[in-house]
Amino acid sequence: MSELSFLLPRSEMPRQWYNLAADLPTPPLPPLTPDGKPVGPEMLAPVFPMNIIEQEVSTKQLIDIPEEVQEILARWRPTPLRRARALEKHLKTPAKIYYKDESVSPAGSHKPNTAVPQAWYNKQFGIKNLVTETGAGQWGSALAFACSQVGLGCKVFMVRTSYDSKPLRKMFMHVWGAECVPSPSRETKAGRDVLARDPDCPGSLGVAISEAVEQAVSDKSGKTRYSLGSVLNHVLLHQTVIGLEARKQLALAGVKKPDVVIGCAGGGSNFAGISFPFVQDKIHGAKIDIIPVEPAACPTLTRGPFVYDFGDVAGMTPLLAMFSLGHQFMPPAIHAGGLRYHGMAPLVSQAAVEGLVTPRAYGQMKCYESALLWARTEGPVPAPETSHAIACAIEEAVKAREEGREKTILFCYSGHGLLDLAGYEKFLSGELSDYSLPEADLCKALEPVKAFPKAPRNKSGKW
Amino acid sequence: MSELSFLLPRSEMPRQWYNLAADLPTPPLPPLTPDGKPVGPEMLAPVFPMNIIEQEVSTKQLIDIPEEVQEILARWRPTPLRRARALEKHLKTPAKIYYKDESVSPAGSHKPNTAVPQAWYNKQFGIKNLVTETGAGQWGSALAFACSQVGLGCKVFMVRTSYDSKPLRKMFMHVWGAECVPSPSRETKAGRDVLARDPDCPGSLGVAISEAVEQAVSDKSGKTRYSLGSVLNHVLLHQTVIGLEARKQLALAGVKKPDVVIGCAGGGSNFAGISFPFVQDKIHGAKIDIIPVEPAACPTLTRGPFVYDFGDVAGMTPLLAMFSLGHQFMPPAIHAGGLRYHGMAPLVSQAAVEGLVTPRAYGQMKCYESALLWARTEGPVPAPETSHAIACAIEEAVKAREEGREKTILFCYSGHGLLDLAGYEKFLSGELSDYSLPEADLCKALEPVKAFPKAPRNKSGKW
Repeated sequence: MSELSFLLPRSEMPRQWYNLAADLPTPPLPPLTPDGKPVGPEMLAPVFPMNIIEQEVSTKQLIDIPEEVQEILARWRPTPLRRARALEKHLKTPAKIYYKDESVSPAGSHKPNTAVPQAWYNKQFGIKNLVTETGAGQWGSALAFACSQVGLGCKVFMVRTSYDSKPLRKMFMHVWGAECVPSPSRETKAGRDVLARDPDCPGSLGVAISEAVEQAVSDKSGKTRYSLGSVLNHVLLHQTVIGLEARKQLALAGVKKPDVVIGCAGGGSNFAGISFPFVQDKIHGAKIDIIPVEPAACPTLTRGPFVYDFGDVAGMTPLLAMFSLGHQFMPPAIHAGGLRYHGMAPLVSQAAVEGLVTPRAYGQMKCYESALLWARTEGPVPAPETSHAIACAIEEAVKAREEGREKTILFCYSGHGLLDLAGYEKFLSGELSDYSLPEADLCKALEPVKAFPKAPRNKSGKW
Repeated sequence: MSELSFLLPRSEMPRQWYNLAADLPTPPLPPLTPDGKPVGPEMLAPVFPMNIIEQEVSTKQLIDIPEEVQEILARWRPTPLRRARALEKHLKTPAKIYYKDESVSPAGSHKPNTAVPQAWYNKQFGIKNLVTETGAGQWGSALAFACSQVGLGCKVFMVRTSYDSKPLRKMFMHVWGAECVPSPSRETKAGRDVLARDPDCPGSLGVAISEAVEQAVSDKSGKTRYSLGSVLNHVLLHQTVIGLEARKQLALAGVKKPDVVIGCAGGGSNFAGISFPFVQDKIHGAKIDIIPVEPAACPTLTRGPFVYDFGDVAGMTPLLAMFSLGHQFMPPAIHAGGLRYHGMAPLVSQAAVEGLVTPRAYGQMKCYESALLWARTEGPVPAPETSHAIACAIEEAVKAREEGREKTILFCYSGHGLLDLAGYEKFLSGELSDYSLPEADLCKALEPVKAFPKAPRNKSGKW
């Protein structure tokens, strides 16, 4: 009988996060104010606590994980690395498919990896409440969990279309004591403005971010801050425990290096988590295909330009250097999965500009088909987000079969789909179809933001 | 940092199931026909395949787990044994609380431990389809998963009140290709009879079992069989992997023997799974409190008599020697959790008669309070069934604090509550209250079945 799970003891849990900003061939571009000046740490202070801002701008390669954060993460970490033998057998592929199972966390996804340190740093800084937004609900659940662990209040603005279609998500947050409000709401100016234009607005992440930031900065006590579940440098940093563990576990499985590393990409944190340690290896010469996978309905990396754009619909955030579909982008209602954010994390964007990662986009039919094949071979039901990574792993495994060569594939099983079963039901009853963003919408959606020239590449690999 | 998880390598997975029937001080009582004669294997043949019937009547102490079954179980087994340090700290208890985490299976509970071998044995026997019933939905989901693994058709009669209140459950089964029908239905005579008496009948496990058995035996091709998720000897047998693994894992944690072993008890399979290997130790002299916990709303072991009773409402099953509230028992609608079966597994019942296990019953308010405390300390959201075991573990830990003595507690974390969040929402919004079965209902509910005299105990511990 072959081994299916590769487990690390707690003593092998990472004690430091890995910061790709230290190793990128070109330095990361700074966030800018609307008038084009670099954003200083003090300008972010009403939004984030200073200990997190320091991480956000750090270019140190390794950053210590606080003991107390490790103590909480150790409830479910190290997460298992598993081999998908049943899927391999079904595909008759010579490829070996490994997946890092992040679905085992209390919130059911990779999101608590950053929710816990964010809550902890805020608590250390004397903050009492966190406000955030959530789309499909993974992030809101994770922050609700983290706040209950460290003793913070938590309020979540949830994109209304998900709030209505996934009633269990808000109940999940309630169990951990959080408040969950559908967005756009009447509680903020940003929400009221959107509702004035469109009283039936289904909401978007961009709108919900505006509401959460507005509510955080308008608390006069100064004890409330905002928390973001993806995109920013410190969030990606916290997620690197995934790839750091996976690298050790692959060694346990006898794999020197994977040939392909795959993660689904919405804002970019899950992809960064599994891949950045391997991007580091690639910068140092390893031959690895590193693939962020996004929905064809929200093709940020594959079809958006690399620009300076706002992170939210109201333009309350700084301008970030990233691939973007425009901060006014509203994902089509026909798309059932998550991964609907208009932009892509600056560090992931920069890695794509550098050619270190090579994005792909898939339609939702292919993703649901892949998820169903997974459930009926391997067993577990993946999150719709995760199905994008599974679709890519299957594509690579089939290619290996056709080319008749061995290949080691690693992907991140970012979360389970137990609270997303309605999407599967729609797929099974034939209610879904593919949707690819029309060229016209792509252009129209873009705000006239300052285009950014391709960053100069330094041949030595250092800057 | 202390270790929180105790993980076994695959090589330590049990290769044999443990059969308590071999070690009980008095022999298990045989199932009877309605006219009081012992039921022979051939009478069960239209319902179960012969390889499973052989297990059902076996008194062999150890029974081999087929290689292919091990291969499927190894996707998530050995399951982790974890220590609930955050809860211990919150309770300020000197007790050590360990829990065996069965929520990590693809279906989210311990149920696949028997669903997989049952599906496999049926497949070996040439069966094409399985029919079953489910209450809260854990068992139906598990059998749907198992059938998708071995390639059998699967049909599930789901108690209507759960079918309506938990829409995600049926979708879960659909993902694995199973059919799910609310019970009582018009598809069977048993269902139509119930609907004729009460068109609005919310259903019960007893009714759903009648429907499933009727449908299985009425398939003239002979390729359809019935599958049961609890109560019967072979089901309990398959669940003993839980306790067998836990015994090894406690040794890894430096525990020679637990002082208390706890499992929630509906039909008895989860309780048997965690406890039977320890019941064996107790028979051989170990001092262990072994506690099945049931809801006060369905107090089979604590208030029911030990009788011969039918397993289903229509009286299609043999008579089983068990504690029972009567096969016509309908659990009150006010009770939000599972564990609603009118009877208790004959092997668990016999162990209770022998004094080897000492049952308790709790009201649902105490259980939900305990579950909420668990979620807000340890993190994960438990199934309402599991909350009964958690409530007992907390009670024992508090007692240890009050008595100022150390104690090692082991309980089975039988499943997660992600598809049961509506119950939590009701609890949080004050819609639930306690319910204890009135004495009058207890008597009224009982059919005049033949009372069974207490089995003679053999002082040597052998028979």
